[in-house]
Amino acid sequence: MAAEIVNPRSDSSTDQDGGAEPLDAFDPVFALHRGGKMAVQATVPVRDKDDLSLAYTPGVARVCTAIAERPELVHDYTWKSSVVAVVTDGTAVLGLGDIGPEASLPVMEGKAILFKQFGGVDAVPIALDCTGVDEIVETVVRLAPSFGGVNLEDISAPRCFEIERRLQERLDIPVFHDDQHGTAVVTLAALRNAAKLTGRTLGDLRAVVSGAGAAGVAITKMLVEAGIGDVAVADRKGVVSLDRDDLTQVKRELAGFTNRAGLTGSLEQALAGADVFIGVSGGTVAEEAVASMAKDAFVFAMANPNPEVQPDVAHKYAAVVATGRSDYPNQINNVLAFPGIFAGALQVRASRITEGMKLAAADALAAVVGDDLAADYVIPSPFDERVAPAVTAAVAAAARAEGVARQ
Amino acid sequence: MAAEIVNPRSDSSTDQDGGAEPLDAFDPVFALHRGGKMAVQATVPVRDKDDLSLAYTPGVARVCTAIAERPELVHDYTWKSSVVAVVTDGTAVLGLGDIGPEASLPVMEGKAILFKQFGGVDAVPIALDCTGVDEIVETVVRLAPSFGGVNLEDISAPRCFEIERRLQERLDIPVFHDDQHGTAVVTLAALRNAAKLTGRTLGDLRAVVSGAGAAGVAITKMLVEAGIGDVAVADRKGVVSLDRDDLTQVKRELAGFTNRAGLTGSLEQALAGADVFIGVSGGTVAEEAVASMAKDAFVFAMANPNPEVQPDVAHKYAAVVATGRSDYPNQINNVLAFPGIFAGALQVRASRITEGMKLAAADALAAVVGDDLAADYVIPSPFDERVAPAVTAAVAAAARAEGVARQ
Repeated sequence: MAAEIVNPRSDSSTDQDGGAEPLDAFDPVFALHRGGKMAVQATVPVRDKDDLSLAYTPGVARVCTAIAERPELVHDYTWKSSVVAVVTDGTAVLGLGDIGPEASLPVMEGKAILFKQFGGVDAVPIALDCTGVDEIVETVVRLAPSFGGVNLEDISAPRCFEIERRLQERLDIPVFHDDQHGTAVVTLAALRNAAKLTGRTLGDLRAVVSGAGAAGVAITKMLVEAGIGDVAVADRKGVVSLDRDDLTQVKRELAGFTNRAGLTGSLEQALAGADVFIGVSGGTVAEEAVASMAKDAFVFAMANPNPEVQPDVAHKYAAVVATGRSDYPNQINNVLAFPGIFAGALQVRASRITEGMKLAAADALAAVVGDDLAADYVIPSPFDERVAPAVTAAVAAAARAEGVARQ
Repeated sequence: MAAEIVNPRSDSSTDQDGGAEPLDAFDPVFALHRGGKMAVQATVPVRDKDDLSLAYTPGVARVCTAIAERPELVHDYTWKSSVVAVVTDGTAVLGLGDIGPEASLPVMEGKAILFKQFGGVDAVPIALDCTGVDEIVETVVRLAPSFGGVNLEDISAPRCFEIERRLQERLDIPVFHDDQHGTAVVTLAALRNAAKLTGRTLGDLRAVVSGAGAAGVAITKMLVEAGIGDVAVADRKGVVSLDRDDLTQVKRELAGFTNRAGLTGSLEQALAGADVFIGVSGGTVAEEAVASMAKDAFVFAMANPNPEVQPDVAHKYAAVVATGRSDYPNQINNVLAFPGIFAGALQVRASRITEGMKLAAADALAAVVGDDLAADYVIPSPFDERVAPAVTAAVAAAARAEGVARQ
């Protein structure tokens, strides 16, 4: 997710004790992590023989029989309807890259407890010891009976696109790659409010997205879906356009429905006259390029910990500045979206998460800001308690409206 | 497990409402099960920005990096060291048979909360939508990074034997099929105490096991391992012996190291002069066969809800009677074993659960009875709070003694 792009070199000094001493003594982060960050709890009593006869044998057999006869009852009488698998293969963990499944577990546990804290959703880390698309798809399909939804996490592009698409085809529960869509929903919400603040609509804006990975692709698609005036995507080699012969399939598709202006050349060239910069790539954008943007520009520089444009520089030229960092205003943080999106989808037993549900989530998120809208407040705080209920309700209503709700 | 053999015909009347009305109104079991029986909880605070910076980004990146560099740290800094996957394919659920993964979930949730309640072990239901041995093995291997152990549950014989063996070969965490070994451990504990009560040793006893499924095979192997005088196994066609030409591979192996007396013929014929009857098959044993057993016989009739020999009949001829039911004395219940076995194995990060660890569990369980030993008290109550700590400590010590502990 955008808020999680971390430069490993900036904080890799955890193992200077030579391996012999416990790490806890040196670092409150390790002390907090000892034994993990989550647990399972029973929600029914199991204290005596009578409790057991209801929650376990012989009583439980009646519940099993009922579900075998009426499969939809699994949502009523098990935790399936409240539990999400947080699935990764450990190939794109934060900004650390391919560190493998075990090393990704602290992030997956963190994600799981955010699901619980912000959305009331139970979530279980599932870090897979395989990286092939077929293997991951088959494995998740086999696991699916136990879960009400699947949150894909930190799986590298472009495999993440095909994995998500194939799982959505195979499963009748929501499958959602948060690094893509969570980031896109929050970005769209902030952009809607920035446009409102400056008296414009999305249709008035030309945006440039830096980064064609999971987040960049999803943000771009969502901006197009939401009616952006124009959007161009730039990867390391410059603007993604149909005249390039080095494009992957995903980027060729992008080129087909973006960049109506027909830009070519570098990211910085594309910024000349642009209204919006959206950075999900890392790297640095030169001050002159920011200065070349249109009047009342928006700079969303979301790389962590180092924004593509430093906020103090961005503020010289832009009307609204957002980052992925919690120590600046306007933090684009996925936790604003994924707990409520899954909570809403699970509440109505949605079979999938549609574009309409994501757009509704973005609208609801933007609306929380309401009349307090200001240049340093285009998106709510992650700790604003109005956020998750608003997103949940909007997503559930959209699921009903779109016919994917099952209750 | 032995205590879970339920006759579906005896309690299948859950769906007489025609499908329109909620089942809760009719049945406290369904009311209890609504929404499931378990939840996830955070064990660290996530209330504000500072909490997030420790439990999630940016702090968590340091923990990930440390595990990537020193993989064994995953046990220290994630919940891996306390969490077990309860894996089933739904093919042999209680006595209900092959009801599929979704319908098995209430049992798996029940198992999970027993793990927590009795052993302090976190457990997650994983009901798989596949039944092939290769598929199940590959799926569990891919899941394994997230878990400290694998409890196989309600997978039908003979596939369960190969699945367990292959997983044990592939994984460096404990893999334990509770329907086999949990039942065997508790049965052995009860048998040791019954022998003690009547002034005999296991070597003095000739046993007959009715049932050559998961539980029957494991009990038989464990009795041989523990030094039983002789043991014969009977399936539906009679005593398993090398002169039969209809044996599966598993039963051929059994025939090779059991039945030194060279018995042939029916179960009931084999009981003549036998010291021990162990029923894990369902079905009924005629009173005359029980009457033909040796003096001071033991009858462990563990089918649920209908014991192979009714306790009042068994008491006419036997010195010790045990069942799988909670409403008679001497209940052979797996919950006496699996929570402590996994808790002990996880405590010392055992790479597997050895025969020695299982024998130690049985001894510890038998020892809890102590000087209170009596014909109606050869095994503790599932709610005896001394049980899990005793089993945990014994299993951990045995793991260390056997060289499979990693801390």
